[in-house]
Amino acid sequence: MRTAAEHLEAILTAITPAPRERVALAEAVGLALAEDVTATADLPGFDNSAMDGYAVQAGSLAGADAQPVRLRIVGEVAAGAFGRFEVGAGEAARIMTGAPVPAGADAVIPVEQTDAAAEGAVTCRAPVDPGQFVRRRGEDVRAGTVVARAGQVVGPRTVALIAASGHADCLVHRRPHVVVVSTGDELVPPGQPLGPGQIHDSNSVMLQAAVVAAGATAEIRAAVADSERDLLLVLDEAIGPMETVETTDPVGRADAARQAGTARRNGTGRRARAGLADEPVGRADVIVTSGGVSMGAYDVVKSGLRGSGVEFVTVAMQPGKPQGFGFVLGTSGRRVPLFALPGNPVSSYVSFELFVRPALRRMMGRVPESRPTRRARVTQPLRSPAGRRQFARAVVDHDAAGELLAEPVAGQGSHFVADLSRANALLVVPETVTQVAAGAELDVILLDVEGES
Amino acid sequence: MRTAAEHLEAILTAITPAPRERVALAEAVGLALAEDVTATADLPGFDNSAMDGYAVQAGSLAGADAQPVRLRIVGEVAAGAFGRFEVGAGEAARIMTGAPVPAGADAVIPVEQTDAAAEGAVTCRAPVDPGQFVRRRGEDVRAGTVVARAGQVVGPRTVALIAASGHADCLVHRRPHVVVVSTGDELVPPGQPLGPGQIHDSNSVMLQAAVVAAGATAEIRAAVADSERDLLLVLDEAIGPMETVETTDPVGRADAARQAGTARRNGTGRRARAGLADEPVGRADVIVTSGGVSMGAYDVVKSGLRGSGVEFVTVAMQPGKPQGFGFVLGTSGRRVPLFALPGNPVSSYVSFELFVRPALRRMMGRVPESRPTRRARVTQPLRSPAGRRQFARAVVDHDAAGELLAEPVAGQGSHFVADLSRANALLVVPETVTQVAAGAELDVILLDVEGES
Repeated sequence: MRTAAEHLEAILTAITPAPRERVALAEAVGLALAEDVTATADLPGFDNSAMDGYAVQAGSLAGADAQPVRLRIVGEVAAGAFGRFEVGAGEAARIMTGAPVPAGADAVIPVEQTDAAAEGAVTCRAPVDPGQFVRRRGEDVRAGTVVARAGQVVGPRTVALIAASGHADCLVHRRPHVVVVSTGDELVPPGQPLGPGQIHDSNSVMLQAAVVAAGATAEIRAAVADSERDLLLVLDEAIGPMETVETTDPVGRADAARQAGTARRNGTGRRARAGLADEPVGRADVIVTSGGVSMGAYDVVKSGLRGSGVEFVTVAMQPGKPQGFGFVLGTSGRRVPLFALPGNPVSSYVSFELFVRPALRRMMGRVPESRPTRRARVTQPLRSPAGRRQFARAVVDHDAAGELLAEPVAGQGSHFVADLSRANALLVVPETVTQVAAGAELDVILLDVEGES
Repeated sequence: MRTAAEHLEAILTAITPAPRERVALAEAVGLALAEDVTATADLPGFDNSAMDGYAVQAGSLAGADAQPVRLRIVGEVAAGAFGRFEVGAGEAARIMTGAPVPAGADAVIPVEQTDAAAEGAVTCRAPVDPGQFVRRRGEDVRAGTVVARAGQVVGPRTVALIAASGHADCLVHRRPHVVVVSTGDELVPPGQPLGPGQIHDSNSVMLQAAVVAAGATAEIRAAVADSERDLLLVLDEAIGPMETVETTDPVGRADAARQAGTARRNGTGRRARAGLADEPVGRADVIVTSGGVSMGAYDVVKSGLRGSGVEFVTVAMQPGKPQGFGFVLGTSGRRVPLFALPGNPVSSYVSFELFVRPALRRMMGRVPESRPTRRARVTQPLRSPAGRRQFARAVVDHDAAGELLAEPVAGQGSHFVADLSRANALLVVPETVTQVAAGAELDVILLDVEGES
């Protein structure tokens, strides 16, 4: 029996960042850069005006606060234009925000400090310092500077900087596509009528939603009945053919990678992300199964994957004791990681949070663990099995004094889906503790919260 | 001049939750439910076993810890099956986790506490209490119970409960689709070569990424040059035709709504979410422009939208003073909200965070404001304009003692994109403060963090 921490470590040792892919900037949101990004040019690229106003020589306006100064207008520069004239002493050029400062001028006086004078002239009511309202070429970024580092998670502000630095795309670790398979003769797709002994397959959509919430894409392959042969066929189809592009240098093959990425998106990540699972849509980067890993006679995942490279272990935790993890080899020769989670919905959910989510984040080049852990005072007594770390479901909230309280939900059995849905945290009861008194302090893992990027 | 809070209030008063739409469960992740969801049946739907083992009458195993008891096996129940037999005194039925407890039996003994005996019999080494390892019908949820409330944000655990309660989809406020338009003759798409006076359009991809990060979908319509006519054509195309389904009762018309949703997804939200913006992909629910709202002669957004229903105001803030907001009417008769943000990248970003993001969240049925505000000690002195609330960019981190420190970035001009990218917080300098000393405490708004759901 290994601890939950040992099981996670075994997983994170085996999982590596996903192959690199060059994607359009907005597609990179939530992924980590797979290379440093360098500015292709100075930013700003040229001296330009910070205001709508007039470009002048600062010397022309000495004493203008005491005695307004009238300047001759020698031209006008709009943003995107380029004045082919010079501004001399006693002269001004009308200029818009962002427009290049014309030769000769060294400052800008805002339009609010001027008066339209007779045609061809402007009256200025304030002096200016040299450089005033001029944004200097390169003052934000010098050409050749690294503007974003490999490993940095791409958000809107990074996107702005990378785009401003001359790039339309960036190299990231590919967003993994997860195929969710659940097993069990008793399962019926959600919304369909139930026969005797049947239940709705809630695990598959739950896991799909959890993958989407983690920033990856997911699809459900129809739940397989309790047949090893069916399971292996579904898995092989999910593993799909070998890739050709992604194992080669993606920088040198940006176009090919981009095409592959586009092909992948059309009908892959996109529809999967939407949860449309009426037909297989993508090659799995990860497979997640639920159910069939226990000690029953029909535990098809465990029996079907015997000798496949998936290791079935018992983890000293509750819920989630039976866990399977390893790499499965398709007939194509492609090998993908497979998580065989227990079938009880609560066990399946907790296993996803503790083991699969960190793995997906590592594949995306992100810090694997992101849920904040806090100390909270438990409001109700709680029993816990000896020798196993319990992840009890709890509702965590601040009391009036600002203290964090954790109320364990009533139904701690691993089939209590309603209480799982109510909870917003996992209360961690150490292996050595079998009785938790009301008022005790314990660690809580906050669900639905991103602790860091 | 209105305050930033007044401007936000004006926006949130005008913005209402988006039309309701019935979507597959995994598509609802991050959206709020638009109606209460009720369980269609008891959960569990029948008494079932919590363990792999044997279903027995508890009375049969009295004293089994002292003297093992041998029971005759009368049948077997797998999950999904239904035993057509009874378990009497002295009898047992092999049972798998989740399988219906057969008639007559009132407890389950785990397989670990039994020994396979002679054929047709099992030896039990422990007594059982009545009800042991039996999950009672309805103990999680009773049929007719509300399992999720309107307004609740859908996450993986909610999805599990809704699916287990008999539903394949749920009614949510539609995920808004945002069309981003930027204006300016000087703009060149990212990655393309620059001519004299030209810059890369970084605002559009930044805003697109910010929309995606907020959970909505976005596309970029080609930046329009400084022509009012071009702008109005692009806006009208983005507004598109009137909808027919969504204003009617969406519950009664679930199929039509679902079809409309599907049509919308194929080529709309999906591709837009991916940031593929090579052609228009969806009808705008919101339009966001950047640039052209200032005092320049070429401020085409302001001039083009004069009298359109968009109000241009000055907001007592820095950056982001010039703001436009209102509803624009297409030639189709459709009316959509439009945010006209200032064109400087930092101003545009701050305006999105303060005004557009809360509006998108309200449209999705979520709490509009979600960024946590904390108190932090400022590490460097900072100047701020009188009468305007400054949202200075800062890097916030805890020091060794756990105190929150805010270091203002060096470049506070609204064109410093590199410093914007470095920052992780907005430092709020009140209107009345013009000098902030090092060591002063101020509010900071943490970016990239979700404070609540």
